[in-house]
Amino acid sequence: MKLYEKLADEIEEAVRRGVFAPGEKVASVRQASRQHGVSIKTVLHAYAILESRGILETRPQSGYFVRATPQAGAARNQPARVVATASEVDVSRLVLSTLRSIRAHDAVPFGSPYPDPGPFPWRRINQYANAIARRHSSWNLIDDLPPGNPELIRQIARRYAENGVPVDPDEIVITVGATEAINLSLQAVAKPGDTVAVESPTYYAMLHAIERLGMRAIEVPTHPADGIDIEALSQIIARGKIAACMVMPNFQNPLGFQMPDARKRQLVDVLSAHEIPVIENDVYHELYYGEARPSTLKNFDTKGLVLHCASFSKSLSASYRIGWAMPGRYRAQVEKLKFLNTLTTPSVPQVAIADYLRQDGYDRHLRRVRRLYRQQSRIMSAMVERFFPPGTRTSAPQGGYVLWVELPERVDSMRLYRAALDCGITVGPGYMFSTRNAFSHFIRLNYSYPWTAQSEAALQRLGSLVRDIEAREGERP
Amino acid sequence: MKLYEKLADEIEEAVRRGVFAPGEKVASVRQASRQHGVSIKTVLHAYAILESRGILETRPQSGYFVRATPQAGAARNQPARVVATASEVDVSRLVLSTLRSIRAHDAVPFGSPYPDPGPFPWRRINQYANAIARRHSSWNLIDDLPPGNPELIRQIARRYAENGVPVDPDEIVITVGATEAINLSLQAVAKPGDTVAVESPTYYAMLHAIERLGMRAIEVPTHPADGIDIEALSQIIARGKIAACMVMPNFQNPLGFQMPDARKRQLVDVLSAHEIPVIENDVYHELYYGEARPSTLKNFDTKGLVLHCASFSKSLSASYRIGWAMPGRYRAQVEKLKFLNTLTTPSVPQVAIADYLRQDGYDRHLRRVRRLYRQQSRIMSAMVERFFPPGTRTSAPQGGYVLWVELPERVDSMRLYRAALDCGITVGPGYMFSTRNAFSHFIRLNYSYPWTAQSEAALQRLGSLVRDIEAREGERP
Repeated sequence: MKLYEKLADEIEEAVRRGVFAPGEKVASVRQASRQHGVSIKTVLHAYAILESRGILETRPQSGYFVRATPQAGAARNQPARVVATASEVDVSRLVLSTLRSIRAHDAVPFGSPYPDPGPFPWRRINQYANAIARRHSSWNLIDDLPPGNPELIRQIARRYAENGVPVDPDEIVITVGATEAINLSLQAVAKPGDTVAVESPTYYAMLHAIERLGMRAIEVPTHPADGIDIEALSQIIARGKIAACMVMPNFQNPLGFQMPDARKRQLVDVLSAHEIPVIENDVYHELYYGEARPSTLKNFDTKGLVLHCASFSKSLSASYRIGWAMPGRYRAQVEKLKFLNTLTTPSVPQVAIADYLRQDGYDRHLRRVRRLYRQQSRIMSAMVERFFPPGTRTSAPQGGYVLWVELPERVDSMRLYRAALDCGITVGPGYMFSTRNAFSHFIRLNYSYPWTAQSEAALQRLGSLVRDIEAREGERP
Repeated sequence: MKLYEKLADEIEEAVRRGVFAPGEKVASVRQASRQHGVSIKTVLHAYAILESRGILETRPQSGYFVRATPQAGAARNQPARVVATASEVDVSRLVLSTLRSIRAHDAVPFGSPYPDPGPFPWRRINQYANAIARRHSSWNLIDDLPPGNPELIRQIARRYAENGVPVDPDEIVITVGATEAINLSLQAVAKPGDTVAVESPTYYAMLHAIERLGMRAIEVPTHPADGIDIEALSQIIARGKIAACMVMPNFQNPLGFQMPDARKRQLVDVLSAHEIPVIENDVYHELYYGEARPSTLKNFDTKGLVLHCASFSKSLSASYRIGWAMPGRYRAQVEKLKFLNTLTTPSVPQVAIADYLRQDGYDRHLRRVRRLYRQQSRIMSAMVERFFPPGTRTSAPQGGYVLWVELPERVDSMRLYRAALDCGITVGPGYMFSTRNAFSHFIRLNYSYPWTAQSEAALQRLGSLVRDIEAREGERP
């Protein structure tokens, strides 16, 4: 193949892949000659070929442009494929598929794990970010080193202190969301091959964190109102070595319970007695429906064995990816791991959120969101009762924004997931919440979005699908 | 202890720790009563005690405030402690200490691994960020899912295409800096216990990534001009299983070489023949001193075994933490790992950088920075030759912004590091670049900062310290 043909093919391929958009200017002949290390004659020849193929066009006095071909870039908008067999579900793929369906097809977001960003004070925080950008002529990475921005750390510590959690600001390490905080905490306390005790059902991100680090998850039965079964956990501890325990004592995802104080204390005591560190995922802490912010395991920790992880993603803005860890006696390890994992957390959002927290708006925003979620939890429960067949049971969330629904036993949640997706509705199938198939007839529903005629119709449709699946299963021998 | 005494102690402790700043308003008596679950009388009693202790003060019509006590918060400004013994250097701690000295004491930043943020178009990118914030009333996390913002991905692919690297945009996964890209790539190709071949000397972040994942690094001699010794690598491969290889073919940190094309091809061929994936760290790709952007291993990859990692941190702005991976056949794994590690990369900086790249400014900015670094590399080399004793040798960087300096053999770089720090000067001791102590008499110097009378004086001082240490070592038996 001639050099100019090769160059022409390369450029055509780039256009086909969407690297150069329709109507966009491409490199001048002189630039292209330098970039590709070929003669100007070769480039001219290649461009002529591309013109004849209808890929490029010349505009007088302007140069070469990509023609507005309808096929270029079209391949990128294909619908996401859905992972299928219920027997061996790849949960991360499933979660990504669900989210992509919500984005690409505007599917009803009952299956989303994230809150509706609608009520978030995004614009306000951005105003602070803009002001910061105007104040600084440049920003030095060195100022962002772990543990993170001192003023943000102080504001976080202050909120804990105001809610009766005594926190040393020096314990806080800022992370890229709670996801990173949990990953780093796990690496600080356990190593590949170790066993980690988790709730069952549990938020799948916890299972993934464990699996990805080559550790083994052992699932402990978890009560819909009281939380992890401490008796069962004790027996597991008695039987073999547990490197760590991961729990979500407040508004657990998917169950929504708030673990009573007495049981939080008991859990910390049992684990402390065996010197077992516990990773506390407290991302929903601000979304309580009760009178006051609930306590944390940290309140009952006397030995520095609680690694508390949280973020602003559920209450303020997930897009900024600001979380933190308070890792007790493992602080130095977590700070070092943070440095190794992502070096620093972007600085502007840290300072912008700190500025926002210093003002009065956060508590007002939270009061509004809590009221909203509490109302919507009642609506969602009532509607499930109305539209779903007998034998359906729901959780009673005390905070957060998800409902856990037990379907009649014959109804497989992956079948429902696929049938619902065909109708443009997403749900969180129970397979996401356990590595055993213990919750195959459960689903999780997100009620953070405003309740509309469209959501009501979607939930009604979902109810019919459940009845259909139940009826068809009933016909089988 | 009485309840009000306990509360008073808690609040005093919080003030001492800097949770509440001097002059700041504390919770009203009513708020505090609710927050701490105690009676109003108890709070009044506790506040009275704190007034008598000089911690709080009342202001008429305003409430209680923290007194402007000079001791509050002072503890947070202590100088960073330096990790000491040369025999077992904790390199992450050492790097953090160096950076903290630069920040806290305004030490001369010869030891920094990061470029001077001065010439970065930070303000300009922020203008784009502000415009984005104004355009959106909210931002949905779902729009930021891996692989990342489509427009940024397209702009990155475009720059590669313009430089003769044929890239499929669908291969690119956006990450939190190249640090995350490298970590995820490593996890995609190797598992705990595996052996990974690295250059020697190498950038310590590579060694840390390997060590942290429970893998074993095997160091391959690396030539200051040609790069990794392919013959030695072949022998290592012949001897035992290598799960992956990590290299920096362009402007390697610390050596600064650009691996010749023929050797890049040879390296890819040797590894491909054994189906060994190679992680290519190409963060300095835009900072070349030659005529054109150098090739990458990706140019010679026919089997999808090259996992290419890069970022905007060295050329545009490190604070935004935007990097990417092009993981070849490991793309699906890397995307999934990204989702598990930090969920998404913050969206506004992605879109802001994409907007910036669409304009003309980037190439102009890069041309200026390249010219600057090339000039400063010559000045730094010449000055080391002038001020340092005979027996000192320097690298000849072909890009980037660091100089590798071999000191007379008797001069231990950790001793120099400590002596220099006492004079307010930082250097990168050779211990950072190997797990063996192979480079104990080497240092790395950062020349990205403008050359001033102050830096000249600092380098002269450094030269004297080297002579002193050499002389004192010479007296030993």
